Amino acid sequence: MEQFLRFKREDLQKYAEVYMEKLGVPKKHAKIVADVMIEADLRGVDSHGIIRIYSYYGNRLEKKYMNPLTPFKIVSETGTTALYDGANGLGHVVSHAAMQSCIKKAKKSNIAISVVKNSNHYGIAAYYAMMALEHDMIGISLTNSQPLVAPTYGRTAVLGTNPIAVAAPSHKQYPFVLDMATSVVPIGRIKVYEEKNEKLPLGWGIDDDGNVTDDPKKVQSGGPGALMPLGGIDIMRGYKGYGLAFLVEILCSALSGATYFTGVGFPHEPKVCDVSHFFMAVNIAAFRPIIDFKKQLDDMITLLKESPKAAGKDRIFVAGEKEFENAKYNQEHGVPVLKPVVDQLISNGKRLGIPFELNAIR
Amino acid sequence: MEQFLRFKREDLQKYAEVYMEKLGVPKKHAKIVADVMIEADLRGVDSHGIIRIYSYYGNRLEKKYMNPLTPFKIVSETGTTALYDGANGLGHVVSHAAMQSCIKKAKKSNIAISVVKNSNHYGIAAYYAMMALEHDMIGISLTNSQPLVAPTYGRTAVLGTNPIAVAAPSHKQYPFVLDMATSVVPIGRIKVYEEKNEKLPLGWGIDDDGNVTDDPKKVQSGGPGALMPLGGIDIMRGYKGYGLAFLVEILCSALSGATYFTGVGFPHEPKVCDVSHFFMAVNIAAFRPIIDFKKQLDDMITLLKESPKAAGKDRIFVAGEKEFENAKYNQEHGVPVLKPVVDQLISNGKRLGIPFELNAIR
Repeated sequence: MEQFLRFKREDLQKYAEVYMEKLGVPKKHAKIVADVMIEADLRGVDSHGIIRIYSYYGNRLEKKYMNPLTPFKIVSETGTTALYDGANGLGHVVSHAAMQSCIKKAKKSNIAISVVKNSNHYGIAAYYAMMALEHDMIGISLTNSQPLVAPTYGRTAVLGTNPIAVAAPSHKQYPFVLDMATSVVPIGRIKVYEEKNEKLPLGWGIDDDGNVTDDPKKVQSGGPGALMPLGGIDIMRGYKGYGLAFLVEILCSALSGATYFTGVGFPHEPKVCDVSHFFMAVNIAAFRPIIDFKKQLDDMITLLKESPKAAGKDRIFVAGEKEFENAKYNQEHGVPVLKPVVDQLISNGKRLGIPFELNAIR
Repeated sequence: MEQFLRFKREDLQKYAEVYMEKLGVPKKHAKIVADVMIEADLRGVDSHGIIRIYSYYGNRLEKKYMNPLTPFKIVSETGTTALYDGANGLGHVVSHAAMQSCIKKAKKSNIAISVVKNSNHYGIAAYYAMMALEHDMIGISLTNSQPLVAPTYGRTAVLGTNPIAVAAPSHKQYPFVLDMATSVVPIGRIKVYEEKNEKLPLGWGIDDDGNVTDDPKKVQSGGPGALMPLGGIDIMRGYKGYGLAFLVEILCSALSGATYFTGVGFPHEPKVCDVSHFFMAVNIAAFRPIIDFKKQLDDMITLLKESPKAAGKDRIFVAGEKEFENAKYNQEHGVPVLKPVVDQLISNGKRLGIPFELNAIR
């Protein structure tokens, strides 16, 4: 059993804000970064939460690998489209603006797309897709990322784990929120198996020869080995996950003119990452009354959840449901942070002069 | 080795046209249906080709299950959106119009979406996505379909195999054309294993208890059993394929106000199928010069194809590549049609007074 401490969401968020500000990030931007980051922890997606504050962001800011001011620019714009230059700043900041612009435009023109080049890691993809929900819109958020996934029949990492996030509003049920890497698992999941000294399920990763392996040591970020795309091996149609990962790459990097595949930098690398993103908002009311759409989504969710269960299972889940339940519980009982992460926050915070001195709720 | 005969594309297409006309389909519509259908055979997607002429279309037309005139209507429309009522006619006809409308609108407004309700099976999803290519646009085509796929932890078919098709133009390489069911395999693939009396790979289908099975007899259209979503079992992240299938269902049926999941009719059923579709066109030039996009796509494809191969593999493929090669070969050497399908065409054609008397090329 892993040990964790629980903190008030507000406290964690405030700390992340102060942390960012100390590293030169403007207050308004720091608020956005902190909100995206702690929302991840709140929703139980702790792989993208405060655990990354140094490795993905603080580290790059401290070493001047990225611009704390995120002086992003709109390169070109129409009534339905926009191309942003993220100015090698915080991905969250330009992404927040790009999605806001989509929503604003979609209120007039019903559909809008923004793409972003020259950015960095933007946190959880779902955050930006979910921004559309309160506006009764469908939101889409995609990003490319550093190379970790091999194409089918390849043996080296070429593609990112390139997530697809889509949010659609419901009436009384939780909204539909899909947020999925297009690889079977993220690289962090392999790390967990390595640390526990357990064998990998066959189909998660390949070794340096391109053979499926159960040895987590053979599936490493930067090589040797690589993650497999969703589907896994050929007979299980891993080429579909590969196709989806390539699709995300096209919509992000080819549409924005950013670098791609092995050109995308790792967060620890002393170079411009040039990560790219894609955002879209669709105004549902352009097609049918919003209440009809929302009630149909409720009915669809009910039908799925009430359909007969497999032997030994007593519940069918819908995309986003677990995360909404986590958020509800953690808002009330405190946001869990793993003990080793807390220790890291304390030691890193001390070194950077941003002491982590929060009181755990329990 | 399966036996087949090869026919000239033009001959097959003419036959399909005449066939449709004899069943009351207007000439202009018959041309569209025939083109979509034979394009499938040409591209090697024979599961959606002339093999379906009776079971999916002729049968429904003969029995008056669907309207041969496809008197589709635009229910509502804006500068970027449209909702079509397919009038329970041929899915191809309304889909062709809906995608054309997207392309026309995207020339002015850069992005456009059309959704269609009250339709029927529309053939290969990629056909409509690919219509965008010659206009230097990205095309998207989605459809729901009759229930064949179980949600993760379920044991009955609730979702369709709901394909995702996306086409993006390249410069000198073949365009990117992804066309994938969101299940691991289509139901026809199970049938092939059943006929060959072979065991299924574990992860393709479940039996009536929701357990993974290798027995194709336990994975049947209409039950018992069901197909598994892309990813397969839980540990291989089948819930991602399930999430994608639900996403397609939302974008098709919830946005258009059509029926959903188990409400969608099977092609053989004497009821209105109420299949729904989603189409989208994105004008690339709104973001960057089209030639830059196309050259980047070429470079990306080259990088993927030239990346190191897994042991025992000598080639990495890109989505759509095999189909373009098939099309090129079959255009020259004739379109292959399986011998049993030819026999079926002959006997069905005789009964309907539409004799199949084509000369095979070889």
